Amino acid sequence: MRALVTTGGGDAAPADVGEPDPAPGEAVVAVHAAGLNRGDLTVAASLPAGSRLGWDVAGVVERAADDGSGPPAGARVVGLAGRDGFAERVAIPAGHLAALPDTVPDTTGAALPVAGLTALYALRHAGWLLGRTVLVTGAGGGVGRVAVQLAAAAGARVIARVGTAGRGDGLAKLGAAAVGLYGDTIAEPVDVLLDSVGGAALEQAWTSVAEDGVVVSYGNTTREPLRLPLDWGRLRPGVSLRYLHLFQETRRQPVGRDLATLVGLVTQGRLDPQVALTTPWSDPAPAWDALRDRKVNGKAVLRLAL
Amino acid sequence: MRALVTTGGGDAAPADVGEPDPAPGEAVVAVHAAGLNRGDLTVAASLPAGSRLGWDVAGVVERAADDGSGPPAGARVVGLAGRDGFAERVAIPAGHLAALPDTVPDTTGAALPVAGLTALYALRHAGWLLGRTVLVTGAGGGVGRVAVQLAAAAGARVIARVGTAGRGDGLAKLGAAAVGLYGDTIAEPVDVLLDSVGGAALEQAWTSVAEDGVVVSYGNTTREPLRLPLDWGRLRPGVSLRYLHLFQETRRQPVGRDLATLVGLVTQGRLDPQVALTTPWSDPAPAWDALRDRKVNGKAVLRLAL
Repeated sequence: MRALVTTGGGDAAPADVGEPDPAPGEAVVAVHAAGLNRGDLTVAASLPAGSRLGWDVAGVVERAADDGSGPPAGARVVGLAGRDGFAERVAIPAGHLAALPDTVPDTTGAALPVAGLTALYALRHAGWLLGRTVLVTGAGGGVGRVAVQLAAAAGARVIARVGTAGRGDGLAKLGAAAVGLYGDTIAEPVDVLLDSVGGAALEQAWTSVAEDGVVVSYGNTTREPLRLPLDWGRLRPGVSLRYLHLFQETRRQPVGRDLATLVGLVTQGRLDPQVALTTPWSDPAPAWDALRDRKVNGKAVLRLAL
Repeated sequence: MRALVTTGGGDAAPADVGEPDPAPGEAVVAVHAAGLNRGDLTVAASLPAGSRLGWDVAGVVERAADDGSGPPAGARVVGLAGRDGFAERVAIPAGHLAALPDTVPDTTGAALPVAGLTALYALRHAGWLLGRTVLVTGAGGGVGRVAVQLAAAAGARVIARVGTAGRGDGLAKLGAAAVGLYGDTIAEPVDVLLDSVGGAALEQAWTSVAEDGVVVSYGNTTREPLRLPLDWGRLRPGVSLRYLHLFQETRRQPVGRDLATLVGLVTQGRLDPQVALTTPWSDPAPAWDALRDRKVNGKAVLRLAL
């Protein structure tokens, strides 16, 4: 079968690979669409040429798990693969799959797993959100756009911050009460800060966090060491800071149920993963480059030839 | 009556002040000994001349609280005052007092409140300690020495780190399994880091913290902005960082019960607040200077003339 593999220098292209060999409890999924994440670019740059890629897939179960768990053969599903999802077929643990209703397109489903679960787990760490104020930095990207919607759906007042004005397009419609740029004044105390930017944006956002506030970081796009103001603690007593690493969380969270929650919100019209770019997987370079250059206001998805 | 008041420039001296005027629920305590904290030096440097000082007191209840709560008149007590405890008499909420048995000297009791409660609340945030590894930086100071003992009493393996070799004297006897200097290699994963130093010591200690570890900061003696390594999050997924501010905690913790816990540990021989310097309050300068210069391996206590 065909799969996207790294070609060195951080890029990827289709190549011939072996068929998946499902372990006990794994289903084989025929992939119809695969979501691209910034994490794919990061690992592609560090892996040797010929390495497999891909976590986000939507498709149809070709062979159910041998233990009878999970969706049956023929079911449309969304799933979180183990870095081998950019392929015609992939074996995925049944517990990392959720059914995809006919009303939800493959491309929408494929945009959900990494971005949706990251936003969901980050907000879950923050706990109670109804009536609280949530500040989301990096709000223009794939995770940020989902986080804005999930926080709003949980009853929070959402303040969105982006790097350039165009990155904020559509965020108000997704539920952000205020949209601005890094450095813009935040006049109200923030109960929860979701940060994926790091650097000066995080340092500045920190000064807006209220006593006992919760800061969850899930990225560091500036690639700078963490730095907080001199009086970081005394000025913000009780604030906790935590880094969320998705693939640590997925080891202990009910991934399948959480994917089903995200799919359910999509069917209710309360969540749109914002697929902003769709491209055939035979030529992934345009999506790859656009994502790297932060030109995708949402998610980029690869369509597999059917 | 007489009380220590600031004289400008960060120092303090006895002066005449008015008698305490207890609010409902407050007892009047005749102070026999008063513990000195680095926080006293910090606020003395920022307050106008003539300001009152002092949180840690031990003495005798002269007048019980009007609502009948707390210890009766004549009882020996330890208490957390509201920055007016360096005085012959002070009004303290009954809920901020605990009985002091005859076996515990005034000077020992007076050393407990701020240092003991800070260490107790910092460790309480860390949660379960039995069988875990706790790293304490600034272990040579007043809070650090109590934290080492409380963590050991809770079943933890304690690694103590100090700035100079002499600061570590006695820490092994207090329960530290390993005593070293900042920068010394820490070969084992650390479940809980208690930091009061900040700067490079915190940045280095961070790299020893295990996945899902808990970092509680309760001071920043280096007076540097917080800085963590570039991959602070990805290398240490799930780690939480929290700043503990004692006077935020005392608003929501059962201070009197917690003081009684600390006193109980003292009477059981499991906690020694390490009174390293005792001086008459009529001449506080030697204690003041020694604490400022980090020459007190433990607590400095002022004795009031009786």
